[in-house]
Amino acid sequence: MLDRNKILEMLDKFSIPSNMIQRGMVGLQSFVKPMEIVLTQKKPPEIGWSDTQIRFFLEFLANLDSNHDPEAMQIGEREARISTPLLHEYTAGFIHGVGRSGNLKAPQPKAVGGSILNSLSDSFALYTLKKTGMKTLKGAMVVPMGTGMSIMLAIRGIMHQFPDMKSKTQLIFPRMDHKSPIKAIELTGLENIIVESSYGKQLLENYQSLKRNKLIYTHANFIEEHGTDAVYVPVQQIKQQINEKTFGILSTTSFFPPRAPDDIVGIAQLAKEQNIAHIINNGYGVQSKTLMNMIQEAIKEGRVDAIIQSTDKNFLTPVGGAIIASPNKELVNHTSEIYAGRASSSPILHFVVSLLSMGMKGFQEKLEFQKEHRALLEIELNKLAKILDERVLDVHNPVACMFSLSNLNETQIAALGGFLYNLRVTGPRVVNSTKTDFGTSTKGYPYPYIVVNAAIGAQKEDILEAVEKLEKAYRQVQEKFSK
Amino acid sequence: MLDRNKILEMLDKFSIPSNMIQRGMVGLQSFVKPMEIVLTQKKPPEIGWSDTQIRFFLEFLANLDSNHDPEAMQIGEREARISTPLLHEYTAGFIHGVGRSGNLKAPQPKAVGGSILNSLSDSFALYTLKKTGMKTLKGAMVVPMGTGMSIMLAIRGIMHQFPDMKSKTQLIFPRMDHKSPIKAIELTGLENIIVESSYGKQLLENYQSLKRNKLIYTHANFIEEHGTDAVYVPVQQIKQQINEKTFGILSTTSFFPPRAPDDIVGIAQLAKEQNIAHIINNGYGVQSKTLMNMIQEAIKEGRVDAIIQSTDKNFLTPVGGAIIASPNKELVNHTSEIYAGRASSSPILHFVVSLLSMGMKGFQEKLEFQKEHRALLEIELNKLAKILDERVLDVHNPVACMFSLSNLNETQIAALGGFLYNLRVTGPRVVNSTKTDFGTSTKGYPYPYIVVNAAIGAQKEDILEAVEKLEKAYRQVQEKFSK
Amino acid sequence: MLDRNKILEMLDKFSIPSNMIQRGMVGLQSFVKPMEIVLTQKKPPEIGWSDTQIRFFLEFLANLDSNHDPEAMQIGEREARISTPLLHEYTAGFIHGVGRSGNLKAPQPKAVGGSILNSLSDSFALYTLKKTGMKTLKGAMVVPMGTGMSIMLAIRGIMHQFPDMKSKTQLIFPRMDHKSPIKAIELTGLENIIVESSYGKQLLENYQSLKRNKLIYTHANFIEEHGTDAVYVPVQQIKQQINEKTFGILSTTSFFPPRAPDDIVGIAQLAKEQNIAHIINNGYGVQSKTLMNMIQEAIKEGRVDAIIQSTDKNFLTPVGGAIIASPNKELVNHTSEIYAGRASSSPILHFVVSLLSMGMKGFQEKLEFQKEHRALLEIELNKLAKILDERVLDVHNPVACMFSLSNLNETQIAALGGFLYNLRVTGPRVVNSTKTDFGTSTKGYPYPYIVVNAAIGAQKEDILEAVEKLEKAYRQVQEKFSK
Amino acid sequence: MLDRNKILEMLDKFSIPSNMIQRGMVGLQSFVKPMEIVLTQKKPPEIGWSDTQIRFFLEFLANLDSNHDPEAMQIGEREARISTPLLHEYTAGFIHGVGRSGNLKAPQPKAVGGSILNSLSDSFALYTLKKTGMKTLKGAMVVPMGTGMSIMLAIRGIMHQFPDMKSKTQLIFPRMDHKSPIKAIELTGLENIIVESSYGKQLLENYQSLKRNKLIYTHANFIEEHGTDAVYVPVQQIKQQINEKTFGILSTTSFFPPRAPDDIVGIAQLAKEQNIAHIINNGYGVQSKTLMNMIQEAIKEGRVDAIIQSTDKNFLTPVGGAIIASPNKELVNHTSEIYAGRASSSPILHFVVSLLSMGMKGFQEKLEFQKEHRALLEIELNKLAKILDERVLDVHNPVACMFSLSNLNETQIAALGGFLYNLRVTGPRVVNSTKTDFGTSTKGYPYPYIVVNAAIGAQKEDILEAVEKLEKAYRQVQEKFSK
Repeated sequence: MLDRNKILEMLDKFSIPSNMIQRGMVGLQSFVKPMEIVLTQKKPPEIGWSDTQIRFFLEFLANLDSNHDPEAMQIGEREARISTPLLHEYTAGFIHGVGRSGNLKAPQPKAVGGSILNSLSDSFALYTLKKTGMKTLKGAMVVPMGTGMSIMLAIRGIMHQFPDMKSKTQLIFPRMDHKSPIKAIELTGLENIIVESSYGKQLLENYQSLKRNKLIYTHANFIEEHGTDAVYVPVQQIKQQINEKTFGILSTTSFFPPRAPDDIVGIAQLAKEQNIAHIINNGYGVQSKTLMNMIQEAIKEGRVDAIIQSTDKNFLTPVGGAIIASPNKELVNHTSEIYAGRASSSPILHFVVSLLSMGMKGFQEKLEFQKEHRALLEIELNKLAKILDERVLDVHNPVACMFSLSNLNETQIAALGGFLYNLRVTGPRVVNSTKTDFGTSTKGYPYPYIVVNAAIGAQKEDILEAVEKLEKAYRQVQEKFSK
Repeated sequence: MLDRNKILEMLDKFSIPSNMIQRGMVGLQSFVKPMEIVLTQKKPPEIGWSDTQIRFFLEFLANLDSNHDPEAMQIGEREARISTPLLHEYTAGFIHGVGRSGNLKAPQPKAVGGSILNSLSDSFALYTLKKTGMKTLKGAMVVPMGTGMSIMLAIRGIMHQFPDMKSKTQLIFPRMDHKSPIKAIELTGLENIIVESSYGKQLLENYQSLKRNKLIYTHANFIEEHGTDAVYVPVQQIKQQINEKTFGILSTTSFFPPRAPDDIVGIAQLAKEQNIAHIINNGYGVQSKTLMNMIQEAIKEGRVDAIIQSTDKNFLTPVGGAIIASPNKELVNHTSEIYAGRASSSPILHFVVSLLSMGMKGFQEKLEFQKEHRALLEIELNKLAKILDERVLDVHNPVACMFSLSNLNETQIAALGGFLYNLRVTGPRVVNSTKTDFGTSTKGYPYPYIVVNAAIGAQKEDILEAVEKLEKAYRQVQEKFSK
Repeated sequence: MLDRNKILEMLDKFSIPSNMIQRGMVGLQSFVKPMEIVLTQKKPPEIGWSDTQIRFFLEFLANLDSNHDPEAMQIGEREARISTPLLHEYTAGFIHGVGRSGNLKAPQPKAVGGSILNSLSDSFALYTLKKTGMKTLKGAMVVPMGTGMSIMLAIRGIMHQFPDMKSKTQLIFPRMDHKSPIKAIELTGLENIIVESSYGKQLLENYQSLKRNKLIYTHANFIEEHGTDAVYVPVQQIKQQINEKTFGILSTTSFFPPRAPDDIVGIAQLAKEQNIAHIINNGYGVQSKTLMNMIQEAIKEGRVDAIIQSTDKNFLTPVGGAIIASPNKELVNHTSEIYAGRASSSPILHFVVSLLSMGMKGFQEKLEFQKEHRALLEIELNKLAKILDERVLDVHNPVACMFSLSNLNETQIAALGGFLYNLRVTGPRVVNSTKTDFGTSTKGYPYPYIVVNAAIGAQKEDILEAVEKLEKAYRQVQEKFSK
Repeated sequence: MLDRNKILEMLDKFSIPSNMIQRGMVGLQSFVKPMEIVLTQKKPPEIGWSDTQIRFFLEFLANLDSNHDPEAMQIGEREARISTPLLHEYTAGFIHGVGRSGNLKAPQPKAVGGSILNSLSDSFALYTLKKTGMKTLKGAMVVPMGTGMSIMLAIRGIMHQFPDMKSKTQLIFPRMDHKSPIKAIELTGLENIIVESSYGKQLLENYQSLKRNKLIYTHANFIEEHGTDAVYVPVQQIKQQINEKTFGILSTTSFFPPRAPDDIVGIAQLAKEQNIAHIINNGYGVQSKTLMNMIQEAIKEGRVDAIIQSTDKNFLTPVGGAIIASPNKELVNHTSEIYAGRASSSPILHFVVSLLSMGMKGFQEKLEFQKEHRALLEIELNKLAKILDERVLDVHNPVACMFSLSNLNETQIAALGGFLYNLRVTGPRVVNSTKTDFGTSTKGYPYPYIVVNAAIGAQKEDILEAVEKLEKAYRQVQEKFSK
């Protein structure tokens, strides 16, 4: 990237001994070498970069954009003119956004550097998802919208690739109580066909009869694997909703307990068999080896059109980006072509920066830590459960634990979240399932509970302290509302 | 905002004469006073702020977000954890994004500062649009997507507000050759009914007969006003496309010449009369007093549901945001409620920063300069036209001029853009209308031409030099492809 | 500096049309080209650079320092380890400081980049001083200390070059009332022999008799040239102080009115004739063509050992640096060798950055503006003088004007400065010469006065407003202390 | 510092639930609380601050300076005008420098914030030195010059406090081979009386006879304590150099092996007894509990005028600052008064920032790590010594180890440093004592050697790798120059 000879020739004019300059060049080369490797291999570096390296690299790239050419005359209607250098700082100089009016991933003539950044983001995403489990993935793109909007876009991308599917009007959605996918479905204009769920023990109890009535397809060992207190939507019940109007199924891997992941493999087989689309909402599933492997299995065994994951939930970026991935390379192109206009480069930039900063090694370490913290959280909650005569529910969520609130009355449960918030614990969510369904992802979930997380990037100290504070808050509400 | 007494008390411990400290406090108060005014009045400052003021203010706000609380335990699945401080820098600390799963503009419990920023952006947008002409506007929101996607969202917002319109399947689109709105329409799932255009002279020539056949509604003086070489879609022809399946009309104010603005007032009256929706694509129209007044008139005289404008094209931000405005406050709420999930805060941040930096005074100065530059551009192009025996076409676009390329042959025309690009002039677009329709927004436009812009933020020097380079490139292609 | 072929080869792997990449490269080359020119020519750029260019260039240089080599093992006692990246930011990465224990300007093996910066600063200083008037200068160096400490260092440098001068014990100092040079003399250990001054009119009145008694050497036209109300130290009176203990003379060019510049040419001739050292305190004299020409004349006509100028007063840097220049190249080396240890690189960095930012063109423009503002200030003060029945004193200072306060009583004069301070005017200094000598640089200066400046970098608006506020403050004190 | 009620009142206008705003305020208060504590207690925080906290705090302070007052008219000759905002960034806004012409520590009317920073630096320095061992210290100030220049300044400060000492012309300097203090002495104009040293074994062997001849005062156990291979200057030999011309003694605590620390307590007693000045060069001694206690003992038992320590060697700042400390508060004032003019605020800023960033806890942890690393280094070098049949010399330096090079010939020794440099190990210094004296701080040191350091801030990995590389380089030179 640097012209060594030219530099030596210039520095030679300074009265500095040449062995010193040689030594200086060695350091300078070490500084830029990783940049060359990334541009050549188009994958995240193994070892994370320093912030000064990242800045230098981005400045290099950004100066390929025409708005930074000090000698250019920029007289278009939109030429990346900005009102203050602060906006250069906030965008690392990538001011043109990404995409062209016809395609979110098309190179822009005025923004060569921004286009390379855009392209790098996709390569990074594809490489990282393959490395973490989706081995036979064929395409991925980073989208400057969250998972909800990306689900919408992917559905439209599928219609763009398969125009005859435009006549289909229903999307089957195994119940999970999150507004984002629900809005996404509304935005597509498809009718949302929600399939009701049941919780594990119920299903196991009635297993034989359900099986007999072909109401269950999910194997008993799937339930064992994901926990007997978890909530499931049996594939057989999904199947019952399919008809000639069905566009496809939106399945879910990662969500708050008690919701278990869907039986993705079963759904993929169903989708293949029925020739309908299958979109997987894999929000924060990249963190979980189990989920990633399940998706890979689904790709192999059935039909998967698009898999959506959040950049911030998995890759420690600010909120605002998602990866749309597919075992079908064309779908990614179709989805990028359906996007209307240019878009903010910020979420793309944040994703690239985050991976440059962590490196693959740093990212994988964070995944390891997450696993350890999740295990630690369960241990600590089990200790607390003994003390409070509660229990950690049997839900094998890769990120979160579920803790019963059986000994608290309605008022106490209602107050618990606020007390924790005031103790400066953010994140846990309390659900009194006896009062409200929404959030449990099912009907009549029998236990009120609190969900506590140990997601990627959380600190060990935070987890230990949070459990302590949970005990404190639990006792505070008991005391305050004792009558 | 600052506690003067507390500060004086602390500084008193330093052996600095108290009159000095008093004087220092005067300066410090001047530094923070404008921040208090903005928070109190919720409108952009009159005088622009320094970058250090902007940074201080944003840091103040960002620290209301829980992820910056050094004593908080953050154990949610998404807690604005980032991999490197660089990402803090790129977002000014607003890492949680904007919105909640149910609403793009809802306050987030963990992001009080980000929520205030989000709210400020809307207040700034509403205030600025009212000031620049849309006096009776009732709501506006800044959206972290470009104009194309925002058109899609606004259409879905209208359906959300008026559920019975969901059954409508067609959208009427007076022809303008830009892919973004076309994709936007495709994303909504509505059928795109394009209404063909004609150019001014044609219409004038056939005026009486067209009028007789009720094919023209656009008044002759509208054509005079916007230029006889401009391209129009007569309202009467739009009307002919309306039927019981019609959802509404997507009209356009600002686009590349030769496309004239639509007769927004006429369309608004039609929409009211026919009880259909009317969305105005006002891309870079905030720059034009004429267009802004026209929209205000349309609001008064007919039906306007939503007006979409680009933040970067009008407010000198990086690409990636738009303002959805409406004379109907409820529509803005409905549109924010239909957005699926959280979104990147970056476009919101950029918009707020740009207005803080310019202040209303700076922004209005830039509008004035734009007007002067547009006039200058025409003068310079007229001089050049005389020299080259070409002409400046009669198209009264507020931002761009159109220059004929009558003395160049096909090869020369094809080469001209590339030669300009190599002379480092970015922005102009060459269209050989004899070869291709797309871009002219009509059929059989008679003259090949080049469009040159003088948009907000362009420098006088750029304009002068660009015209010089145009001459140079013109002669270069003549010489190179003379045979 | 950049390896074009290598970059093209890498970017070729991205699916971006090659003509776009070529165009991007043109912009990138424009970005780095000025850096190559500066490194090759070792002088400030003609056209100032953008901050992003400066940052990129400095990052490039800083990475030649070993502490940025990510693969180096740094186990010395001092290896530019810092506690936080913020300190990297504040130093632009130049953490090793400048110099080695034996020499302020010696290259450091661990800090090749810092050494180049250090060397560039000297080349920039030499080039700029030659350009602004000191044509036959032979050496210059930027020192990380202010003018006072630099005077001390230069004196010690002269002793280092001429060891036999170490036995001399007195330094002659034509009176000027500034503590810095007085402390500087004290630090050297030399005895400070102050030569008293007289003001112009006095000298002119007694001209013939003084001349007869060989007490005046300064020509009458020198007094005419610098103003009849100015204060002078006649060269003949300086001469009278010279004896065998005399080390040299510390003369002054630029100081607050009423002090006139010394007759540098006369003093230089004297120094040459007497074989004693001559150090010129040229604090902010670079701003004045007259003073710079006078120094050049002194170099030609007599002896000048060292000329000291402030970086902040002349080159718009933060406080903390000075340039030690000499027509004798060896002196600069000797002075750099006498400095004890390494030093902060910050003042060196600030000087280089300021010249990169302004460019020679920008710097010269600022000099022109200064001249205009100085003229404007005099016009405005003359207007005010008429109104208040005061006068602008006849002192031709290149930067400041002197305004009489004849109609104010003692209390009013004492209050005036504070009232201006409260009106947020900083800079002017009020001297009641009837109460105190110090500040007037003479004995019995007949008029109380206020000095107002128009130094480099001041804004026209500031000058106009300051004169307005002066009127206001003048009237306020008159009113308040009317009795 | 923040006006809670005013803020709540302003934020109340935003439609954000008030419990959210309350929670946001809790975080914001946590952000600024540590700033209030530092301003109130004037000592470093216990827990280090984040960079955003440091930036916010500094921006707050800097805005007390008049140049940031947007409404001020700044028309002085020096008003902190800068050519580019980049210079604001590099100085954190403290552009006025520190001090006034008469006093390095005097508050500046235009720079209230800078004056507070300046004052804080001294309080931080005093607090930290007392905490790390100099319990009865009375004054300390941070000086924007390195240790060498600070030694010069301190000597002049002593003369300023005790004017009758100005007639003294000699300074006694127990030999240590570093150019900085030698230059410092030259700058003061005092004659440098170097007292020769001997190495430990020699002294021990001749102990009885030396004692008899009163040539040794240093107790045998002092030699045991600091190593038998170390180099000492016996106090008795220092005493022999004292006469009526003696100004004082410049002793040394921390230097490269084999130089042992001086017997500071003995010298202090001598200075007291002889009524001469005693300056301690404590360059990087803050790292060593032993040295700090020794100085405290010297203060108690004898005379210590000034103790000088480097900011970068002890506190992980960029090069360029020093602390002048004294058990005599007046001396610090006198020294600040002798400084000529204003100075760069950068070294002051860097020191404050470093302590804010580390906090006392972080700093003490780093001291602990340094101790561990020093022990580890010795263990590793002992292993290597066994392998190479060399030995770790018996020198108990708190930071460095000394490794013999007995099996290398002259050529090999000469090449070793360069080979290490090429293996990217910076820091170690090779001395072939059979070829050159300078560096050994004595005459005829019997063993060629290499010094390897484990100073504060070094990483464990660096130490392990450096020892590996030492082995590699050792073998490389053996192989390459085997004949």
